[in-house]
Amino acid sequence: MNGWLVVAGLGPGAEALVTPEVAAALAEATDIVGYIPYVARVAPRPGLTLHPSDNRVEVERATHALEMAAEGRRVAVVSSGDPGVFAMASALFEALEVRPDLAATDIRVLPGITAMLAAAAAAGAPLGHDFCAINLSDNLKPWPLIEKRLRLATEADLAMAFYNPRSRSRPEGFAKVLDLLRETCGPDRLITFARAVSTPEERIETVTLGDATADMADMRTVVLVGNSATRRVGRWVYTPRSAP
Amino acid sequence: MNGWLVVAGLGPGAEALVTPEVAAALAEATDIVGYIPYVARVAPRPGLTLHPSDNRVEVERATHALEMAAEGRRVAVVSSGDPGVFAMASALFEALEVRPDLAATDIRVLPGITAMLAAAAAAGAPLGHDFCAINLSDNLKPWPLIEKRLRLATEADLAMAFYNPRSRSRPEGFAKVLDLLRETCGPDRLITFARAVSTPEERIETVTLGDATADMADMRTVVLVGNSATRRVGRWVYTPRSAP
Repeated sequence: MNGWLVVAGLGPGAEALVTPEVAAALAEATDIVGYIPYVARVAPRPGLTLHPSDNRVEVERATHALEMAAEGRRVAVVSSGDPGVFAMASALFEALEVRPDLAATDIRVLPGITAMLAAAAAAGAPLGHDFCAINLSDNLKPWPLIEKRLRLATEADLAMAFYNPRSRSRPEGFAKVLDLLRETCGPDRLITFARAVSTPEERIETVTLGDATADMADMRTVVLVGNSATRRVGRWVYTPRSAP
Repeated sequence: MNGWLVVAGLGPGAEALVTPEVAAALAEATDIVGYIPYVARVAPRPGLTLHPSDNRVEVERATHALEMAAEGRRVAVVSSGDPGVFAMASALFEALEVRPDLAATDIRVLPGITAMLAAAAAAGAPLGHDFCAINLSDNLKPWPLIEKRLRLATEADLAMAFYNPRSRSRPEGFAKVLDLLRETCGPDRLITFARAVSTPEERIETVTLGDATADMADMRTVVLVGNSATRRVGRWVYTPRSAP
């Protein structure tokens, strides 16, 4: 039996947003590897071993998955959203880079609905023109680089999606982001806080930067900031296709 | 019978990448509205009327869809990929803005797998760190703005995804983009051309900017450019999670 490894995106939460491709891979897998809450989204069944692990051990987790696939297991490394967006796919290739002995592994990356696009759909179309996706966690990059990117993205008048706006380790970071954006974009720019999109706890809230406060985001929130033309129509928020 | 309107993302091409949510909406729809090749992806059945239309009539198409929903029809406006990324969702809200009489329409935007994320998954994880998505078509924005955004995105060291890299109306534009990127990123930066992702015609090709030529992209290609740390591991290309 030949082993394989898939890095599968489970989407933002709802079963109806899991692609058939991912569902089929999970049904054939012998082992599920991932962060505890994501592994918990896969239903247990006979013959399936669950390997939940804690946050911040992504490369160790990926190495373990590669080793199991090399032993002939069918391994699904699961991520929330899309595995290529601030998730496990890069960690897998980082692990592969230091373990060339595992280079022959049959690997596939299976895309998923990433949080920012589910959030945008729930809010309307705030990412309907050029946009960027920035991870606000400073675990893996220095704070000044985050600030530099925010300033350049604002100068480019890109809409923005922020992942990991708040973490326990630096609760003050997101307040600084809001201050910077108020300075560069002005107080009237629209900002959408999308929490737990597509789950029963979903909450979508759009306010102006002037009214935004850091506690509107938590670890389950993705934040969308419009460009200078983003506006409301009825209960929706959208960014026109044409440049401002 | 109450009408409704969904703006549904069909994903990049493969049936296995259509979400169950979208499949369910298409099964309940009475009318399918969209650009000719996307409407052609929906199987005809009794009771379903197909309304294919040409490119560049997005707002007219959206208005027609809103009018049908107001008359009690169940209308699916279909887009390739994700409807919120350079697709029909923004056009729908533009139409709604000029037709407040249709504001009560029951509207939902259903996300899909957008081309850049399917392309990234096929190539590895080139968008695994902060990135931007830029539509290179200058139908809806002036060329100098595209150039400005490319320069700022490069300065921010964002990975980049380009939609609509080449069009019949300005075949020279993409060659100018490559020249600009060679100047700002240097010749060794990796660039991935992903054509017809997830279809039988899929072709994924990664080269350096020094070796890239404009004819590597056509209208079915999405282009991904790495950041300064993007590299190859085996047959894959990926961007590490840590900042360079």
